[in-house]
Amino acid sequence: MSTPVYQRMAVIGCGLIGSSVARAARTSGAVGEIVVYDADPAVRARALELGLADRAEDTPAGAVAGADLVLLATPVGVIGAVAEALAPSLEPGATLTDVGSCKAVVAEAFARMQRADVHAIPGHPVAGTEKSGPDAGFAELFQNRWVILCPSPKNASEAVERLTAFWTRLGARVECMDATHHDLVLAVTSHLPHLIAYNIVGTAADMETVTQAEVMKFSAGGFRDFTRIAASDPTMWRDVFLNNKGAVLEVLARFIEDLHMLSRAIRWDEGDKLHDLFSRTRDIRRGVIDAGQETPEPNFGRDRK
Amino acid sequence: MSTPVYQRMAVIGCGLIGSSVARAARTSGAVGEIVVYDADPAVRARALELGLADRAEDTPAGAVAGADLVLLATPVGVIGAVAEALAPSLEPGATLTDVGSCKAVVAEAFARMQRADVHAIPGHPVAGTEKSGPDAGFAELFQNRWVILCPSPKNASEAVERLTAFWTRLGARVECMDATHHDLVLAVTSHLPHLIAYNIVGTAADMETVTQAEVMKFSAGGFRDFTRIAASDPTMWRDVFLNNKGAVLEVLARFIEDLHMLSRAIRWDEGDKLHDLFSRTRDIRRGVIDAGQETPEPNFGRDRK
Repeated sequence: MSTPVYQRMAVIGCGLIGSSVARAARTSGAVGEIVVYDADPAVRARALELGLADRAEDTPAGAVAGADLVLLATPVGVIGAVAEALAPSLEPGATLTDVGSCKAVVAEAFARMQRADVHAIPGHPVAGTEKSGPDAGFAELFQNRWVILCPSPKNASEAVERLTAFWTRLGARVECMDATHHDLVLAVTSHLPHLIAYNIVGTAADMETVTQAEVMKFSAGGFRDFTRIAASDPTMWRDVFLNNKGAVLEVLARFIEDLHMLSRAIRWDEGDKLHDLFSRTRDIRRGVIDAGQETPEPNFGRDRK
Repeated sequence: MSTPVYQRMAVIGCGLIGSSVARAARTSGAVGEIVVYDADPAVRARALELGLADRAEDTPAGAVAGADLVLLATPVGVIGAVAEALAPSLEPGATLTDVGSCKAVVAEAFARMQRADVHAIPGHPVAGTEKSGPDAGFAELFQNRWVILCPSPKNASEAVERLTAFWTRLGARVECMDATHHDLVLAVTSHLPHLIAYNIVGTAADMETVTQAEVMKFSAGGFRDFTRIAASDPTMWRDVFLNNKGAVLEVLARFIEDLHMLSRAIRWDEGDKLHDLFSRTRDIRRGVIDAGQETPEPNFGRDRK
C-alpha cells in the first residue's frame, strides 16, 4: 500500500456517493483515517456497521476536526448551508471539496466562507447509479469515470494537484474546468436526460387509455431504460434542477425546439429528415463507447444469460 | 425434442429479429425446416454461413412455396408491398405473420390480400437490441418477452392457438389485443422513448458551447443510456414513426405538455412539484422489475466488474 494522499478524510453525507468514496478511499489506501457524519443517526450507525469509517461523529463540526480532507456529499441544495456551518471548524490548511452535480452554486458558497487558509475546491465525480443510501455504494464506482474539479484562481496549484492525486488513486480521471461551463456540460449530459426520463415515465403513468400493467409488461421496447434513470433519488434531483436552473432551461428549450421539428417531420411524412437524424446519432454512440464510458454489449447484455 | 409446431417456416428479412426467430426456432425445435429470403444477396449468403436456415431462396415467392408458416421480418414500411407481392404464392392453409412494430397498417395490408384460405395474423415480439443485421441476432432474444398478436374476428381460433404455441416454444409470452390498441400502447412504451432518445442525442450534438468530446466523456451522468437507444436501425425507426403517426403524435403532444409543466416548476422554484413526480416514477420502475422485464441490478451492473 502506497502512502496516503491525505491523513484524515471527513465525509459529510453517507449516501450512494459518500459511501462509495469512503469504500474506494479505504480500498486504495488514499487516506489514513475516515470519519463520517450524516444528518440521519440511522445512516451513521449503518455506516459503522458496514465498516465504511473508523469513526462516526454526532456533529459535522466534530467530524471535520483534525481532517485534512473534508468531502461534502449531501444533496446539492444544502451544500451552501453545510459549508457555512462548518466554516469555523475547518483545520487551517485543510482541503474542502464536494461531489455535487451543480458547481456554480457551490463555488459561490465556498467563496462566501471567507476562509483563505482553507483550499476550497468544488468537485463532481460523473458517476452513479439509480440506487440511494449507504448500502448502495461500492468501491469500483469511480473506475474509469471522470471527476471534474472547478478550482478558482485563488486555489494553490499544489492543493489542486493533491486532490487530483486523491481521485486518481480511486480510479478516476480528472479534468478541470470553469464552474459555469461545468453546469452547461452537465445540463446536456446528465440533467436534461434525467428530466426527460422522469417526464416520460410520468406521461406514461398518466395515460387513461393504456393501463399501468400494460406499460410495465411491454416496457422492453425502450421504456424500461428510462425507468431506471427515473428511479434516481428524488431529493438529489429536485436540488439539481433548482440549482442549475439557467443551463437546464436553456438546454431544455433547445430540446423542445428540436422535438417540434421531429413532430412536424412525422406529420408531413418527411422520412428523409428522420433517417438523417437517426443515422447521425449512431456515430455519437460509437464515440461514447470509444471514450470508455460505456460497454459495447448489445442491450447492456441483459437479454443474453 | 418435441414435435415441431410448423413443418416449414419461411423467414422474409434476415436482420436482428428475423435471424433471432430462425435461431430460436431451430434451437427449440419449433419448426421442421427453415427457408430464408432477404432482399440483400449478401445477407442471404451470410444467413447460410451462419447456419440460420436449411435453404436460402433468391425470390420471396420461392421462399414461401410449401411453407406452412411465413414470417415477415422486414422494416414495417415495406410489409404491405411484400404481402401483396407474396399473396399469390402462399400455400392454402398457411399462417402468415410478421414482427413489425406497427400493427394497424399490417392488419390493413393483410386484409387487402383477399386470401380467405390463409391465416393472416399480425404479430409483434416486444424485444430487441440496438444492433442490426443477421450477425446481431441470438436465440435467447425472446425469453420471457411478450409477443402481441392482433388476430381479426375472421381468424380461426386454432390458427391463433398454433401461432401462440410457436412463440411460446421460443420462450415468449403471448397476449392478444386489437391492432389500434397495440399501436397506442407501443407508442408509449417504445416509439416515444426512441423518438426522445434520438432527439436528445441530436440536441446534444448541436450545442455550439459544449464540444462533442465533452458530451462523450461526461456521458456517464445519464446521457449514455439514451445513446444506446439512439443507435437503433434508422430505416426501421423511420418506418415506425411514419406508420404509427396518429398515436405517436398524440403521445408526443402529452409528453411536451408535461415537459412544459416541469419547465415552469423549475423556473418558479416549485420544488414540491418536482419531488412529487420524481417519487412517483420510482414505483413504476419497481413495477417494471416485478413484471420480469428488467434486471434489478444497479446501472445494469455495468460499473461493477
